[in-house]
Formats: sequence, structure tokens, C-alpha cells
Amino acid sequence: MTDTHAYHIDGPVPETPENDPHSNDWRETRVVGTRQPKVDGYERVSGTAIYPQDVSLPEMLHGAILRCPHAHARVLSIDTTEAEEMPGVQIVITGKTPGTDIPWYERGGQFYGHLFDDHCRHEGEEIAAVAAETPLQAVDAIRAIKVEYEILPFVVDDDKALLPDAPAVQEGGNMAGDPQIRERGDIAVGFAEADVVVENTYRTACQIQAPLEPHGSVAKWDGNRLTVWDSTQGVFGVQETMAKVFSLPISNVRVIGHYMGGGFGAKLETGKYTVMAAIMSRMTARPVKLFLPREDCFTVTGNRPGNTMTIKIGAKSDGTLTAIEYLSLGTSGAYRYGAGTGALPTYLYKVANVHAVDTTVYTNAGKARPMRAPGVPQGAWSLEQAMDELARKLDMDPLELRLKNLASGLQTDPVMPYTSNQLRACLENGAEAFGWKAARQRTPDKGHLKRGVGLAAGMWFYSGGPPSTVIVKLFADGSANLNMGASDIGTGTKTWAAMIVAEELGVSLENIRIEHADTATTQYATASGGSKTVPSDSPAVRAAAMDVKRQLLEFAAEQLETTPADLDFSDLMITSTSDPSKTLGLGELERLERRGLLMGTGYRDPNPDGTFTSPFAAQFCEVEVNTRTGEIRILRFLGAHDSGRVLNRLTFDNQVFGGIAMGIGLGVTEERILDGKQTGKMVNANYHDYKIPTILDVADEHACLPIDVPDYEFNNTGTKGLGEPATIPTAAAVGNAVANALGGNPPNAPLTPEKILDLVHSLGKGA
Amino acid sequence: MTDTHAYHIDGPVPETPENDPHSNDWRETRVVGTRQPKVDGYERVSGTAIYPQDVSLPEMLHGAILRCPHAHARVLSIDTTEAEEMPGVQIVITGKTPGTDIPWYERGGQFYGHLFDDHCRHEGEEIAAVAAETPLQAVDAIRAIKVEYEILPFVVDDDKALLPDAPAVQEGGNMAGDPQIRERGDIAVGFAEADVVVENTYRTACQIQAPLEPHGSVAKWDGNRLTVWDSTQGVFGVQETMAKVFSLPISNVRVIGHYMGGGFGAKLETGKYTVMAAIMSRMTARPVKLFLPREDCFTVTGNRPGNTMTIKIGAKSDGTLTAIEYLSLGTSGAYRYGAGTGALPTYLYKVANVHAVDTTVYTNAGKARPMRAPGVPQGAWSLEQAMDELARKLDMDPLELRLKNLASGLQTDPVMPYTSNQLRACLENGAEAFGWKAARQRTPDKGHLKRGVGLAAGMWFYSGGPPSTVIVKLFADGSANLNMGASDIGTGTKTWAAMIVAEELGVSLENIRIEHADTATTQYATASGGSKTVPSDSPAVRAAAMDVKRQLLEFAAEQLETTPADLDFSDLMITSTSDPSKTLGLGELERLERRGLLMGTGYRDPNPDGTFTSPFAAQFCEVEVNTRTGEIRILRFLGAHDSGRVLNRLTFDNQVFGGIAMGIGLGVTEERILDGKQTGKMVNANYHDYKIPTILDVADEHACLPIDVPDYEFNNTGTKGLGEPATIPTAAAVGNAVANALGGNPPNAPLTPEKILDLVHSLGKGA
Repeated sequence: MTDTHAYHIDGPVPETPENDPHSNDWRETRVVGTRQPKVDGYERVSGTAIYPQDVSLPEMLHGAILRCPHAHARVLSIDTTEAEEMPGVQIVITGKTPGTDIPWYERGGQFYGHLFDDHCRHEGEEIAAVAAETPLQAVDAIRAIKVEYEILPFVVDDDKALLPDAPAVQEGGNMAGDPQIRERGDIAVGFAEADVVVENTYRTACQIQAPLEPHGSVAKWDGNRLTVWDSTQGVFGVQETMAKVFSLPISNVRVIGHYMGGGFGAKLETGKYTVMAAIMSRMTARPVKLFLPREDCFTVTGNRPGNTMTIKIGAKSDGTLTAIEYLSLGTSGAYRYGAGTGALPTYLYKVANVHAVDTTVYTNAGKARPMRAPGVPQGAWSLEQAMDELARKLDMDPLELRLKNLASGLQTDPVMPYTSNQLRACLENGAEAFGWKAARQRTPDKGHLKRGVGLAAGMWFYSGGPPSTVIVKLFADGSANLNMGASDIGTGTKTWAAMIVAEELGVSLENIRIEHADTATTQYATASGGSKTVPSDSPAVRAAAMDVKRQLLEFAAEQLETTPADLDFSDLMITSTSDPSKTLGLGELERLERRGLLMGTGYRDPNPDGTFTSPFAAQFCEVEVNTRTGEIRILRFLGAHDSGRVLNRLTFDNQVFGGIAMGIGLGVTEERILDGKQTGKMVNANYHDYKIPTILDVADEHACLPIDVPDYEFNNTGTKGLGEPATIPTAAAVGNAVANALGGNPPNAPLTPEKILDLVHSLGKGA
Repeated sequence: MTDTHAYHIDGPVPETPENDPHSNDWRETRVVGTRQPKVDGYERVSGTAIYPQDVSLPEMLHGAILRCPHAHARVLSIDTTEAEEMPGVQIVITGKTPGTDIPWYERGGQFYGHLFDDHCRHEGEEIAAVAAETPLQAVDAIRAIKVEYEILPFVVDDDKALLPDAPAVQEGGNMAGDPQIRERGDIAVGFAEADVVVENTYRTACQIQAPLEPHGSVAKWDGNRLTVWDSTQGVFGVQETMAKVFSLPISNVRVIGHYMGGGFGAKLETGKYTVMAAIMSRMTARPVKLFLPREDCFTVTGNRPGNTMTIKIGAKSDGTLTAIEYLSLGTSGAYRYGAGTGALPTYLYKVANVHAVDTTVYTNAGKARPMRAPGVPQGAWSLEQAMDELARKLDMDPLELRLKNLASGLQTDPVMPYTSNQLRACLENGAEAFGWKAARQRTPDKGHLKRGVGLAAGMWFYSGGPPSTVIVKLFADGSANLNMGASDIGTGTKTWAAMIVAEELGVSLENIRIEHADTATTQYATASGGSKTVPSDSPAVRAAAMDVKRQLLEFAAEQLETTPADLDFSDLMITSTSDPSKTLGLGELERLERRGLLMGTGYRDPNPDGTFTSPFAAQFCEVEVNTRTGEIRILRFLGAHDSGRVLNRLTFDNQVFGGIAMGIGLGVTEERILDGKQTGKMVNANYHDYKIPTILDVADEHACLPIDVPDYEFNNTGTKGLGEPATIPTAAAVGNAVANALGGNPPNAPLTPEKILDLVHSLGKGA
């Protein structure tokens, strides 16, 4: 932490982080920046890793939830008599069961109903829950519950939600809050200054997070103390919610995460299933496990809203942007959540006049939840394809157009400078590595196989550093224990954390044991999401390791009768630089022996000035479009990423490649399909019909180019986030490559063969 | 901690502990010193507490150990063929199995053989181990192993171990090290100055710790990481030993204790069973649970040695002691352990001339281990009965004789002052509360029921404060989390720790959740034993809570624009004393919100000057001896204890009453009986034949009188230990009461009816 600071925008990298001057400034690292396999790889591949779904407790019951099969209905009656009498059934609860009258809140705290509601606003709303001796007994019992519904008319299409005759999803009508408006300058003036204007409407489909491990929890009570094993991205948030729901002291709720099998934003909130498991556990005095079947993980646990985005951009003939007008419509499903996409069009490029409006409507569909850069990949889909249209109209290289309009800060009023911004390097170095100019000049056609290249840029918005506390303990034999509250949601959090400790203390990676994601035994961290785990937690890890080293050098100086500054610590030996005969092994350090071990604490507080620690990205791809089948083959993809310093090159690459795969899903393969005519139900709620990209859908060749410039602003590891930016420009880059191949933009994602063939024919490019 | 300090021997209590002057000095406490039931009482009585023996893991195997049935034998051959083929058997290991060639060390580090040895030096030595699908399959397999032994001559009696024809237990003969000699002055001069001399020989029998929960462990490997659930008094010691045995980094061994069902010193060491469970777990790649059957917990897991003690005391006619000569013989069993008893006779009273010799011999019996004040209750049995003999010879009240000879410090050379000593108060206040003078004057006889009263004094030796680190976390709702490494071995450690946090932070006891005794997730602490848990860990708990309060006041001062010293924190509200309008609820503290929670760390380091923080005790009892049956009925018992400040009056009382019960066991009922003639085997290795005192054997009425004078030397809670001193004087007090009833000392414990009748007849007191 610094008292004063300067911004480093496209400027020189600071020489030394603002830390203990005696510390290694990480200019030459042994571990940080190398490629390291995951430290928990053995547990993950051998099956010894205990995921929440693997938890099995003595006397544990198994739960199941009965859900409304209709898109819109009112519950008239529920008869649980037969279910209660079935073999193995221990408890059946409904909204009439005492203790279930629990108000339910959205993220942000807005009330939106109860644990069970008679008014079912979308397919999958909760009607009843059962706990039984076996999972199948629970499912059988659920089927035996008789429910009488009044089936109501529904609306599931965004564009029909505001029609006069649309059924009301919520009592106040189908506008989910006021439209969100971002504006600066005057677009009328801006468009008047423009030499060229482009305008188009782009669409994305609704995408589902669809993590491999279903959502679910195990709940267990000891008196008034509740323990929950949860497949969650953040244990402390679940702890707080459960304490609130059950009126418990926060400390009496223990939430354990440890391993988890993916979330992508859908596991940031506390689930109703968790509360139901806890209620049934308390009523039966037995642990209850309640994991959702796969179908529910498509219909009720969240999604990235589909959006319809109309964008109009004005520019001078030299490419200087003069105005952006942006209108976006999306649905948050039946409950409140922002479905906006206007942030990226407003902030990515330097433009004086902007008017962006995000409208969110209610429909009779499952509620949206955050999904890998909420709203931003959709914004990129529209903005970045429109930028390419503009470049074509100006006859400019799309790369040049973007370089001409780089911003120097977040264009709020006043401009909030970024702590650092290497978008220019992402674009220039990425283009160089991709061979952009040569690829653009190559003749793309091979008969019906038409080649094209595309690029897109992106950024993520992160007002850096939610709190994080980390403890590092060093034993006399040079092994260490690292204790942090953050979840490792599959991204390698434990691995980079161990690498930092290894770097600072000269400990080997195999000798570091990590405890994490347990509200009772590990330190405070916010949820892992929003690309903030690395920049929030890695500085705390480093600070904790440095605190150990500080104590170690102080104690050694006392014992060797010198000063800490005179001492060097490496290979578990402490040596005086002025008198090399003064030397101590770690095991000889008396104060370590007297303390048992050395413990250090590190904190990372939020950026004190509210600055954004934003990562940037530019991605490049080459595609081959089959104009006979409409299939897109992605030949190669390169992600150039300014995410600050790279901690682990291997997991950095993996995160980029994974993010690109998810972006390809948005752009090419994935789509929630609701039956808007007869039932309002989702018709592809399974991994077979909902098309997550397979190995055949992603690029034949992947490359990752980290810009690797540290951002030491409030951050002693120089890191920024990576999870979101890896997905943000991807779909748009594919869209631009397809446009480059065919000579016209494909406005509507996903780019299914059917849509591609339509485009081919409309452009007259059939072969 | 202080830089300088003065000793407070019988002097005024310091006004304020040497802490943050802004802290409560605990002169007026709300929680500390009150009677509080155990915070984990619900879990303990409801059965939800998971003791190591309750641990059940998926795929877990069950282990059993084959033990040598002979007191002394050599293994000629082992045939495991049949056992290996039996149903459910997964692994059979012997000393020939690769990986079992593990050297074994005593406490203190002296090598004494291997995990399995061909030379079996006592009944119960380990021959082989099995892991099978069920516990009964394991036991069946053990029985199917065929072992050929060469049976060797044995010696199990201490007094025969050094005879010329005694079989050699160890290769170097049967002296277990050189005799330990404590001496000062010149006893020849001392006895020459004496007007009166008494001399007698006293004996105690071998006592077994016999905790309710058997010894045992569950071991599980993940790659090269080992997790052990162990019924242990100290997890960090087991961690270190297992790391050494398996050549693992310390951090890769996780040892979990949590609940445990008693140890009394027998669970301070790492057991061979723990290592065997880990070996079999690694070989089968499955968790292995290995708990010992009850019989083994009598024969192989430790004992308090029996001793033969000859004591000679000289005194002037006014009662001033002039010399003590002391000779003690005991056996550590077949392996090395100090069986000495000379500390108390050397140090308890002020006497210029002492010569005390402790001789330990090997016998073919199970090894001794620490047991509730190792050696000291035996020393009290001899010293304190001899003091009463001296008092009778001088015609002095035994109370007066003791008050005349109080010491001012540990009589090493030079005298090491105690940090505090309230033995005078124990004796005087205890006598007052007991009604000592009146009881002495009462005519005791009621025909064959003869009444008598006795007292005895004691002290414990504790060079205070092994290291302890504690973390306290405070949530915004005023609930808290306490994290400490210490085991709660049934004494209420968790409860007083929570009380300290409640006192310092104004948090309610129910809202404090405690994590403890887990090397991976909790902070460093030494084993719970030697009456050091309270004085080692309670100052760290208080320091951690004060660290939270310090941060809280600093952050609040920043927010309220005042100084921490101006602020008061109570009922979870922070208020300015100078301007009561400045006030903040805990939930309104911005820095707490920004940190997620407030975490404080506290340390307790060893006393820097090596001083002894010794607790003192005097106990008083009244007995009724039935001269027809030889039975002793204990009518009432009072323990007056200088253990520094009382944290929890309820568990303080419980500890005293429990200690007295164990002392009554030593004095009246308990005795390991070895068949010294034919087999050398223990003949009462079960709870039926080994007589632990029942409710009918302990006193009809118990009273506890804490002196409750804080000892703030290096210790911010003012506490001293209690576990050992509660047992030290007990047996001697009973002996003195019996002597008072009958008019002559009963020298040999336990005072079975047979021995009492012998004494009655020898004194001519039969009725």
C-alpha cells in the first residue's frame, strides 16, 4: 500500500513494488511466471478430492425438490399425504410447513418472494421438498405429491414482454426497473460531426452456465450451529445469507467449499436448495444432502440473458469516433437482475458523445445470474462487429481503427484513470504474433471453403481489491501452510498461491499445504468471481509470506547479532552478507523453535481511491466457412491479454483457452430454446440438446500472448484479472472473421449453420 | 509481556496487568470467574461430537494388532499365510514387511528399537498388524497368525530387577540410566542439628491412566499427504513425529484431534498403532482405522510407576526442618522413562540440607508414561505422611508444622523465585473453610467406626508458557470465531477460551464458535498436559481478543475522528467518552465492512527468564475407618488451590473434584497386578478388576476453595495450572486422615481393606 501514487497509463513500469525494500522485487523470479501444473492435480484426477457432491455423512438423508412444470401457474392445492407414507421418507415440506415462511432476496438485497410461492412465475419454481433415506426414495416421493395448478398465460420472448396484451409476470408489469442510461456529451452534435455513420441491430441468445458439478448442498446441525457443504464460488457470502435466514450469529454458520466443479457466476448466490436442505435437516435432526438434477441446472440456476442491441456509430473520415448511440433489450427472467450490455460500448473507446440505454424486462423464464463478464460479451458482439462495419466503410484496417480510438481512462465524469492499460500492446503485439497483416492480405477463398480473419477488443470493469486476509505458516523444516478463504473454482487459485509462497520463502511447491474456502478455519475472502480472485487474494498471500520473512530476518538478526537488512534468506539458510561466517539454518532459529512455527498475516484492502484495476484483451481468429453446409471451422485463435503480471503461465493459458471456448459457445453453438408457443418450457435442458462447444468446435490451434506488464497500483503482485476478459471479445472476433470471409456481418448469435447459410444466400456468396 | 519485572512472592497483587492500558484490567469481570457450563456440552451429551473413534470414512478399513502374550520372549517365526487368505483381509504387516523398519524413539528422542522387534520385552509388544473390511475380520485374522516364540525368563517386580540372577530386560542390564540425585547442603550436618528424626518406608502401586476412550487413530493418504485423526493430547507433536517417521514435510501431515475421551498423560506420545495405521493405509490406498481394545489400554499404553520411597526427616524441636534424606525406587517398565519421585521432597519445604536419590529399573512390564503429575503424588504420599509422623513426634498440629517451613522459591542453587506462591493461603484459608481445628479436636471414635482428619500440601513444577498462538475473528454481527491449536482433553479448554473472548469483546458465549486441535487449520500450541494449557494458551487468547479490540478502536477512532483512548466499546457499540453523540454500532464500522471481519492474533511465549510459574495446593479430608471390614469411607474433602486467577469456577471445581477422585484411586483403590510368579502378565487388565474409584469410593461431600490471586508475571490472565496439583496431595491427605483415625501411618498404597485390617491389628485398634 502506498500513501501517494501516480498512474501508470502506457507509462513506464515502476521499478520496485511499494513494499518492504528488503524484499525481492520479483524482477528475477524462480517460480512466479513459470508453468506449474495444479498443486491439487493428484487429488483431482485420482478421485480423492472431496467435492461437495461427494460428501457423505453418517445418517445422512437425501433430498429432492418438486418443481412447477408450467411456465406460469398458480398453486391451488398440494396433497403430500401419499408421499409422506412412502418408504424411507422422513420429511415433506411445502410453503405451509411452519418455518418455511422465509423471505427471499435478490443479490443486492431486494425482496422477491418467499422460499415457496403459490405464484409460480417460471418453469421450475419450487413447490415442495422431500428428504428420504435414499435419493431414489426422495424422487419417488416427489412424484407422489399431488398438486392442482391454475395454468396462466405466459410470455417468454423479450420482444413480446412489453406488448399490451402480454401477461404480467410481476404485479407491477413487465419492466424490470427503469431503463439504465449512460450518457455523456451530446450525440446529436457527435453525429453532426461524423463523416460516416454505421447502424445495425445485433442479437445474442440466452446462454446457460451449465457447470459440470450440479448445484447443491449438504446441511447438518449441531444444536444451534449449522454446517453447510456447498458447491459455491464463495463460502463467506453463503455464511452471511444462512445466518440471516435462520437468525443465527454469523459465527454459528460454517460453510465449507474446498473443491467445486464449476460455477461461471451461477454459484455466487445462496440457493433455495441450501435453505431447504437446512430446514429439513433441522426438522429431522439428520444431515440432508440436496443436489439438483441436471435439468434444474439449466432451468432454474441462472443464465446469461439474450440481448437485442441496436448500435449506431459516427466517425470522421480519419476514423476518429464522434458518437455512439446504443439501445439494448434483455430479459432477467421472472425476477430482477440487470440484463444490460451497455458498459463496453460506453467505455471501451475514446468517444465524446454517448447515449446508451439498457432495458430489462420480465418474462416467464428462469432468472438470470452473473455469467462470465455479465453483459460484456454481448456488448462486444454488437460494438466490435459495428466497429468492423465502420472500418469496412472507412476502408481502414480494423486494427488501425481501434488503435486510433484508445481511451486513457474510464469515461465517467470526471474521467477515472485506469491503474494501468495495455490495450495498445494487446492489439499491436497480438496482431504481430497472429500475423494479422499477412492474414488479411491472403486470398481467402478455396471454393466453397471461405477463409477470413477477425479481431475484437475488450476490457473488464473491476474496482480492484475487495478485502482478503491470508495466513502463511512456516515450519522449522521449511515446509509451509497457507490459509486463505478464497474458493478455487477450478482456475488454479491454490497453485498460484503456493507459487507465491514458494517464491517468497524459497519453499518447494510440494511442501506447501493449503487450507481454503471454509468459513470456520480459513481467513476472510470474497467470492471467487468477477476476475477478482487473483488481484484480491494474491497480494494478501504475498504480504503474508513477506510477513513471515520479516519476522524470520528479525529473529535471525537478534540471534546473529546483526541487522535484518544484512541478512539473506535462501535455500532455507540465513546468511549475513557482511560476514558469511554468520549463518543459520531454519531449524536453528531459536525464536522459531520457541514459537513452534512462524506465522505471517497479509491483507489486501479495496483500492482506497475507487480506481478501476481493469484488465484488457484483444483476440484474433481465423475461420473457414463452409458455404455449402453453413459450418464454421475455427482454424486458429490468439488471445493477447493485459492481465498484469502472469503468476502461472500454464493456468494463465488454460484460463484464456477456456474463456475462448465459452465465447465460442456464445458466438457459435449455445442457445437456450424456450417453447414460446405452447408451453413456455425449455426444450433443450440437457447436455445433449444444449450445445456446449466440444473439442471439434473450438479452434484447431490456440495461442496465448500475455502482455505481462505488472500493475503495482495497490497491488504487490502486479496482477489483474483474467477470467472475464478471456471470454469478452471471443464471439465478436468470430463474427468479424466470418464477416471477413463472407463480406458481411452475421448479426445474430449463435452462428448456427442455418443462420450462416441464410447469410451466405443473402450475400450471394453461395458456392 | 514486560521488559522488566518484579517477583510477587506473598506480596501485593499487581494493580494492573502489563497490557494495553486501555484494556479492562479484569478487576470487575462479567464472564471470567463465573460458573459456565461447557460450550460444547450439547455436542458431548447429544452424541453429535465426533471423537476420533467415531470417525468413519468411505472405503475405510479396520485394523488390529497381534501382540506378544508373554512377558519376555523372542519371536522365532511368524506365519501369516492363513491370515492373508481370510475374508476381508486386505493387508498383513510384520517386521519383515518392507517399509516397517522404522526406528522408534522415546520422548526426548532416545532410540529404543523398531516398530516391530523380535525381542519382546513385555506382554503386549507388537508382532503383526492387519487391516480388513470389518473390525471382526481384522480380529479373526490376527488370531490366525501363527507365531513361534522362545519364552524367556522374566522379572516384573522392581525390587527383584537388580538381583544378580534377574533376567536382563535390556542388553545393558536393568538399571534404567544412572540414579537421579538432587542435593544441597550436607545432610550429616542437618541431621546433627536435628532434635527429632523420623524415618519410614512408603510404597505406592502402579496406577494406569485408563482413559474412557481407547487409544487409536484413523490414517488416510492423498498422494504424499497424510491425514491422521488421533485421540491425542497434542496434535502438533504427533504431526512432527509422523513427518519424521515417513520423511514427509511437516506441512504434509495433518493431525486432527477435536474431541478426545481422556488421556491423563498417556496420550502425549505418538503411538505405534498410529504409524501402523498409516503404513497399512498407504499400502492399501484406503483409510485405515486402528483403535486398541480395552485390554491393551491397560498393558501397553502407559502407567504411573509404583514406587518404594524411604524418607528420613530431621527437625528442631520447634518444627524447623534441618535435613531430608530420600531414596526412591521405581520401574519404568521395559523401556526408558524417569520413575523418580524426589522433586516434591526436595522443593516443597524450606530445608537447607537435602539428599534425594531416584533409582529407575527396567522390568518386563509395559512402559511408564506421564500420568497426572508424574512422580509427584507418590512423593507427596511419602513426604506428607512423614511430615505428619514428625508432627505427631513433635506434638504439633500438622498445619502449624507446614506453615513453619514454607519456602520462598524453588530451592535450586541459587534459589529460583516462584512467580507467585499462595501456599500459605491454601493452608490457612483451607483449614479455616474445612474447620480443621474443630475437626482435630472432635473425639473420633464411634465403636468400630473411627474418624480422622488429614491434610497434605503440594506444588507443581512448571516453567511457564510454552508457545501458543491464537486467532480471534469478530464478525459484524458481534459473533466471533476462536482458533487455537490446543486440545480440549475434557477439562473445559474451549469454554474458558470462549469466556475470555466474551469478556474482552462483550460477545455472548453462544455466539463464539471454536476451531481447535487441527494442525492444518488451527494455530500452534503444545500438547495439553502438565497443567500448562491454561497458563500457556489463555494469555494468547486474551492477547488475540485485545488485538481485535485495538484494531476496532483504532478504526472507530478514524471514522469518528477521535482517539482510541477516547472510545468505549461495550454491548457491541463504540461510544466516545468525551462526546457521547459520537457512536457507532459494530455493523457500522466501515473498516470492518471493508475487511470482511476483524482478525486479531495473540502469542504467549515461554517465560523469558526460565522462572517457574508453580501452582500450589492444600487438601483436607475426613474419613471414617471401619475397623471390622477395613473399609475407608471418605466423608468430606476440601481442595484449597492456588492456581492463579479462576477463569471458570464450574470447570475449576470439576477439575479439582476429578483430580481428587484420581488421587483417591492412587491412595485407596487402584493397582496394576502383575503375576510375578508364573507368567509376568497383568491379571486385572479391565475395568472390572482394575478398581477405578466409583461414586461410592469418593467423598460424600466435596468442596473447592480457589485462592484466586492472579499471577500476572508474563501472563495477562493471571492464571496458573490446576490439573496436576488437584491430584498431588490427595492420597497423602487420605493416608494422614487414616493415621489420625487409627493412630499410626498406613505406609503402602492402595489402602485396601486387607491392608487396613493389617494396620488395625498391628496397632491393636481392632474393635
